[in-house]
Amino acid sequence: MRFLLDQDRMPTAWFNALPVLPTPLDPPLHPATNEPVGPDDLAPLFPMALIAQEMSTEPWIDIPGEVIDILSLWRPTPLIRATRLERALGTPARIYYKDESGSPAGSHKPNTAVPQAFYNMSEGMTRLATETGAGQWGTALSFACTQFNLDCKVYMVRASYEQKPYRTILMQTWGSEVVPSPVDDPSHPGSLGLAITDAVRDAAGRDDTHYALGSVLNHVLLHQTIIGLEAKEQLTLADESHPDVVLGCCGGGSNLGGIALPFLADDRVRLVAAEPSSCPTLTEGRYDYDFGDAAGMTPLLRMYTLGHEFIPPPIHAGGLRYHGDSPIISNLVNTGRMEAVAYPQGKTFEAAIQFANTEGKLPAPEAGHVIRAVIDEALAAKETGEERVILFNFCGHGLLDLSAYDDYLHGRLIDA
Amino acid sequence: MRFLLDQDRMPTAWFNALPVLPTPLDPPLHPATNEPVGPDDLAPLFPMALIAQEMSTEPWIDIPGEVIDILSLWRPTPLIRATRLERALGTPARIYYKDESGSPAGSHKPNTAVPQAFYNMSEGMTRLATETGAGQWGTALSFACTQFNLDCKVYMVRASYEQKPYRTILMQTWGSEVVPSPVDDPSHPGSLGLAITDAVRDAAGRDDTHYALGSVLNHVLLHQTIIGLEAKEQLTLADESHPDVVLGCCGGGSNLGGIALPFLADDRVRLVAAEPSSCPTLTEGRYDYDFGDAAGMTPLLRMYTLGHEFIPPPIHAGGLRYHGDSPIISNLVNTGRMEAVAYPQGKTFEAAIQFANTEGKLPAPEAGHVIRAVIDEALAAKETGEERVILFNFCGHGLLDLSAYDDYLHGRLIDA
Repeated sequence: MRFLLDQDRMPTAWFNALPVLPTPLDPPLHPATNEPVGPDDLAPLFPMALIAQEMSTEPWIDIPGEVIDILSLWRPTPLIRATRLERALGTPARIYYKDESGSPAGSHKPNTAVPQAFYNMSEGMTRLATETGAGQWGTALSFACTQFNLDCKVYMVRASYEQKPYRTILMQTWGSEVVPSPVDDPSHPGSLGLAITDAVRDAAGRDDTHYALGSVLNHVLLHQTIIGLEAKEQLTLADESHPDVVLGCCGGGSNLGGIALPFLADDRVRLVAAEPSSCPTLTEGRYDYDFGDAAGMTPLLRMYTLGHEFIPPPIHAGGLRYHGDSPIISNLVNTGRMEAVAYPQGKTFEAAIQFANTEGKLPAPEAGHVIRAVIDEALAAKETGEERVILFNFCGHGLLDLSAYDDYLHGRLIDA
Repeated sequence: MRFLLDQDRMPTAWFNALPVLPTPLDPPLHPATNEPVGPDDLAPLFPMALIAQEMSTEPWIDIPGEVIDILSLWRPTPLIRATRLERALGTPARIYYKDESGSPAGSHKPNTAVPQAFYNMSEGMTRLATETGAGQWGTALSFACTQFNLDCKVYMVRASYEQKPYRTILMQTWGSEVVPSPVDDPSHPGSLGLAITDAVRDAAGRDDTHYALGSVLNHVLLHQTIIGLEAKEQLTLADESHPDVVLGCCGGGSNLGGIALPFLADDRVRLVAAEPSSCPTLTEGRYDYDFGDAAGMTPLLRMYTLGHEFIPPPIHAGGLRYHGDSPIISNLVNTGRMEAVAYPQGKTFEAAIQFANTEGKLPAPEAGHVIRAVIDEALAAKETGEERVILFNFCGHGLLDLSAYDDYLHGRLIDA
């Protein structure tokens, strides 16, 4: 059962969580001085509009018309009640999901790629540099840059670059230059932290170029709140007063923040992060200041971290292999407003295939994590006979990750 | 700009073109006797419900509730006005497309796979056998069989089986057994006609198994009319009284028939088929009785054909490489009700990339053919300053065909 919003009911402002967090965020610190960074410190990397959003205390921030124009190629996205999954589980829970897989890049990532490209174009940039792990973010930024005639250079984690040629081709189709990272060590498989270092170094060295990040930062989560804002409206169409629990998978935190933050003020709503056991940032990391990249070039952020030199095992959910986490998400977990669960990847593929068989959509390996958590919530509701209302974000499809399913189906998956 | 239909406005009956064709269809002939085939001749391969639909003269045929239940996982599909493409072309034409790429298989194919699986299950079959070229149809039938607990065996054209592992994995994820065809000659690259022979032989030899075909036959086009029926409703939402021209790419004819047949009776509407120059069935074939498969096991159909032994060059649009064509489409072209155009594949990829850059969706190579024709229609309207209303079917995405884009981007495409 699908609940659709007309285009004229698409949100026209993003929801800013900063003023309503349980405790104020600790400021980012300069990597050299350990002093709080100001707007000028960030100006070599980001346009002023995004720096302002990063620190804003306004409750709502208007979405520019040019951005709405492009987002409406695929937004509002459907809210879908997963009745066939409910039936297969025999649960009294009602399961709803936002389907973000219909975007140009096949995930939620373009929700922030488009405004980031727009603000950079508006402030005179002609080129962006970024990193990508599994390739979702690089694809999204490539699409967005094409819309505003910006050049785009993508530093892709070498292991993914070699294993996922389809993602590279998609970025090239949208005109991007894609190179494997780390650039200075062709024998290294790479990591997200190392690729960030490459991209930041590129942007810092050129006047025509800024840097763009696909998750973690406050302005990225801000742009993703359009997911949760639409979902709220659509739950009303479905005659639900509120969800009992809202879930997202969590790597850097952007899709989870997108669906969860608009429900922050509602105490009836539990918020849950699902992450991989092999990169257990929220469930086993420490809450401390750490660098965003491997080489220590970025500001220090207060977040859950496994240490900026942590190299996670090569699980298929490349989007969840980050040593740190969004400061906003970390704040929510640290204050107890949000729960976190971790799963080994075998159990997430089992859940993903159950979803594909019942709902007809093949999940990205990242989305398999939240689906695992959702199924466990639904089975818990069955246990207690409770009509739990579950909302989650289906952050992307797995059509470019089919080799991962092949490994699972043929018993080659390392169940880390 | 997207025009969405609520789920309760999804069509509840298919439109049957047979009673309103310009001239009656010539009957299929038995391959041994050359006499018209009757229902009993087809019973070893198809359930009686589909045989009845194949020959029905009823103007409307009800869609079973169980089928609607599954189709509504992704239907009604959006009608989208391609305003960004229009702007890039500088055309006064208004371009609308039905987006069939959001289905489980990423194409229009599940529209018929689901009812075919349903009717077979209803009549006691426990297993289906089919062929697939590029893999779109095999994927769709695999999904549909999972919904009704049917086993599914897919004979896949060997060249595609070897070049497109992702499609195979997707079919296996939905539980199908996939083997390369022809089964008896491992050195042969295969063809759709040969794969049909393999699948028909399998089904004819087992009591628990029927055969399923993804295009060509009347009942397949019937099931696809849901596309055009929805589009009609949605054009009203867009304040258009009628399209001036309706286009689809054409291999066996199912997606073209699906969008075009509901407009058959409206003389104001031109109908156009777009096919590859390298397999020019409608533009260069002869209109005659021919076999549907390579070995001459199927009934003879009156259709445009290049000869059942024709092996087309290995262009990337695998779904358009069939020696014959739907008898309904052939009838329309032969009587002058429908036009046909043919393109070499280089020009279709150029069009596909322009579409991806403006509208954000990567077309399947098959869809590239109709987009080429649409762009040419829009440029012709620009030439004459005419407000032409163009409707086409975006039959599928190209995410599992990215190697074809790679060939195009790197100058390795054979421009047949």
